[in-house]
Amino acid sequence: MRLPIGLPKFTSFVLLALLTPATVAQNVILIIGDGMDDQQITMARNYLHGAKGQLALDTLPIRGAVQVVTLDHDDPSKVIYVADSANSATAIATGKITSRGRISTTADTDSDLQPITVDLKQAGYSVGIVTTASVTDATPAVFMANVSQRFCENPEMMVQAKIGGNWYANCEDDLIAKGGKGSISEQIARSSVDVVLGGGSKHFAVQAEASDLTVLEQAQAAGFSYVESGEVLDQLVNSSDDRILGLFSPSTMPVRWQASGGVAAEEPEPSLLNQVHEYLGDVTLPTPVQCEPNPGYGNTPPLARMTQAAITQLSKRSSQGFFLMVESASIDKQSHARRPCGQIGELLQLEETLQIALNFAANHGNTLILVTADHGQAAQIIPNNSLFNGYGIPVYTPGRLQRLITPEGSIMAMNYATNEFQAEEHTGVNIPLLANEQGRGFVPSFLMQSDIYGIIKNYLLAETR
Amino acid sequence: MRLPIGLPKFTSFVLLALLTPATVAQNVILIIGDGMDDQQITMARNYLHGAKGQLALDTLPIRGAVQVVTLDHDDPSKVIYVADSANSATAIATGKITSRGRISTTADTDSDLQPITVDLKQAGYSVGIVTTASVTDATPAVFMANVSQRFCENPEMMVQAKIGGNWYANCEDDLIAKGGKGSISEQIARSSVDVVLGGGSKHFAVQAEASDLTVLEQAQAAGFSYVESGEVLDQLVNSSDDRILGLFSPSTMPVRWQASGGVAAEEPEPSLLNQVHEYLGDVTLPTPVQCEPNPGYGNTPPLARMTQAAITQLSKRSSQGFFLMVESASIDKQSHARRPCGQIGELLQLEETLQIALNFAANHGNTLILVTADHGQAAQIIPNNSLFNGYGIPVYTPGRLQRLITPEGSIMAMNYATNEFQAEEHTGVNIPLLANEQGRGFVPSFLMQSDIYGIIKNYLLAETR
Repeated sequence: MRLPIGLPKFTSFVLLALLTPATVAQNVILIIGDGMDDQQITMARNYLHGAKGQLALDTLPIRGAVQVVTLDHDDPSKVIYVADSANSATAIATGKITSRGRISTTADTDSDLQPITVDLKQAGYSVGIVTTASVTDATPAVFMANVSQRFCENPEMMVQAKIGGNWYANCEDDLIAKGGKGSISEQIARSSVDVVLGGGSKHFAVQAEASDLTVLEQAQAAGFSYVESGEVLDQLVNSSDDRILGLFSPSTMPVRWQASGGVAAEEPEPSLLNQVHEYLGDVTLPTPVQCEPNPGYGNTPPLARMTQAAITQLSKRSSQGFFLMVESASIDKQSHARRPCGQIGELLQLEETLQIALNFAANHGNTLILVTADHGQAAQIIPNNSLFNGYGIPVYTPGRLQRLITPEGSIMAMNYATNEFQAEEHTGVNIPLLANEQGRGFVPSFLMQSDIYGIIKNYLLAETR
Repeated sequence: MRLPIGLPKFTSFVLLALLTPATVAQNVILIIGDGMDDQQITMARNYLHGAKGQLALDTLPIRGAVQVVTLDHDDPSKVIYVADSANSATAIATGKITSRGRISTTADTDSDLQPITVDLKQAGYSVGIVTTASVTDATPAVFMANVSQRFCENPEMMVQAKIGGNWYANCEDDLIAKGGKGSISEQIARSSVDVVLGGGSKHFAVQAEASDLTVLEQAQAAGFSYVESGEVLDQLVNSSDDRILGLFSPSTMPVRWQASGGVAAEEPEPSLLNQVHEYLGDVTLPTPVQCEPNPGYGNTPPLARMTQAAITQLSKRSSQGFFLMVESASIDKQSHARRPCGQIGELLQLEETLQIALNFAANHGNTLILVTADHGQAAQIIPNNSLFNGYGIPVYTPGRLQRLITPEGSIMAMNYATNEFQAEEHTGVNIPLLANEQGRGFVPSFLMQSDIYGIIKNYLLAETR
């Protein structure tokens, strides 16, 4: 019998789980599309399957809307209305709301919040973290580390490390010398997580604090087998039940797609006459493009391949079951960069990953698949021909525009207009949560983001099996 | 027994419904928030209940995502990716996709599509249409009329009637003299709908084609009792079972709220230095405002009051049950006008209306409540303090910005940046569909907009009661 949300307390669930003999492995695969709001999903649906088509996502039978709550860093008694990946992923990983930039630490008192991975490891589950970002990036980090600022990704980034402009990382209180836990990469090296796969090798190549070893050497000393290619990853998974740290790129992994020639969205160019008066002259819009393979993708292991390897290894490492978080990171990163093909190609990676998860669940019935986002993002689908074309004057978007020729032969126009800076802002929209049939009774039609933590705990720790 | 989606054909359903003795009335209340995508819903949630609060909408237990499909007017073999209310409401009302601007007519051949209201009247249900727009506006019109262009709202708008700029309405083929059905208001006057409530009296005050009567006089001659105030509406509902045409304003009904002083979103004002280089100088953002009552609202009957009257009258007019479409129109119209308080106050009207529907359903079990939108809209919640504030340079949105002081004491920033014209564009995002418990087995987690037609038909016509 499964207990629905909001019934007995977690503590009694844990006792129950520990006292009850496990007969069937129980798994949760949590897939996070970073920045994947409904605009991004619709863009991908239109491009990949046509306006009348559907994504694998769309076949999941249970849907909820997730409200994202963020505390104000300057006054944590108040909320703000747009999150970043650090605070939103912290809500998922710890069940607690916090302020932007925080990696599983509280907004006001900078206290550590215990990620769900620690509880699950203690309860006997194996745990894996897979991402197309650096494994030290905010979304994966909150599941493995506690630190005051997301930018403190390695030992060299802890004190007055320049982020850009006048912006400096500052996690001095998190230094090991000050009684802290150190940088994010160092905490990953020491963590009990079974499988960590993604980008970010540069954050492990540096010397660890107060040590002769690099962070990578510390991770290996702590029992991680290290791999740098998809081939070696597969060999390792086929030949051992080791804990695995796989880092396949220095930082964020390359994305699969780009627009023809690599162009990002561009500003429409109004004629001089139109700059004099909006009813006059005309405007030159960016030439429509198609998506093409990113030549920089090389032999980067796909997210689905990493996910398959993680599932196989995690299944070996606990007969009780596993928790796997998979992040498709560059939906967000490519939206910041105003690159819809990058976003769509990355969402395709999420789709392939979901198919891997669905295939596994088809043979392992007690597998809850959750797919969600962490926050909204900048891209909007706008008309290629304005609603107001009938006026006979040039009507065009401020900000940046890209027009994609879709495989069904139409033009999909998308704008990026949250700011004029070198990277777009997130948005505050509520975001989707989808689940397979195992989510029935666990996933309501509306929830707070921090409730996702309880759903996973209820599913894995509340069972009487 | 209720039959799930996609089982037997409608025709056999109709026969079944006619042959089976009705024992309990069966009702559908379809609430359409025009332009109500998840951004608009989140804005309203944050303002009305706080970031940790929930709307009445959020309590509905069943949720689907709706893909909106629009045909290209110039080449109906192709799709376009952003709808207008005419084609999207036509999909709901007729189950068929069409091109922008069309009122229940096909994209290619301009053929009439039979609205669901006609089928339901034939099957013995009473039917009502309630809106805060003019009753001749696109969303209500598709349920009562067939015409080639949405702007042909009255007999004077049929041929070369100026819309704006170089834009002219042209529905010459729909003239009665040409064998057509006439303008939208004339078709409403002749329709068999039981209750029609909203704005738009100016479209009924003009002389009907080839008649000595005004359109209103034609409606009265056809059996509508006419009312112009909420008080007289209530009196009529209390004293008769007449068909009712209630028109409470000349065109769109006034909205309930505005921003302090009536200001719309405004463009940020960068300093001269910032105009020289984006890393220099500073920017003046519009002053934060609060929502306040719109002084022009007067004694306009609220949407909830019109809905209550319609439910009462429709219940009297058929023992078999009713279909009621209620549109909260100005979520869209105020988003076009870049007025978030107008949008939020209108969404509050939708919330009150939903509460009326829920109260009715609590006492009338066989009542399916559906809440959906027709298409996405321009407003986006963006950070009040940019994600990139750490750079120490001014980062601000292109387009227009309004910053609202919310009742919980935070600032919610919203931008409008789909174009630079006098009204914003719609967006192509998929939109929500929510249902009460009666929707279980009828509303899937993902559907095409035109499937909503089938859901209503299945619910009302597929019953063995």
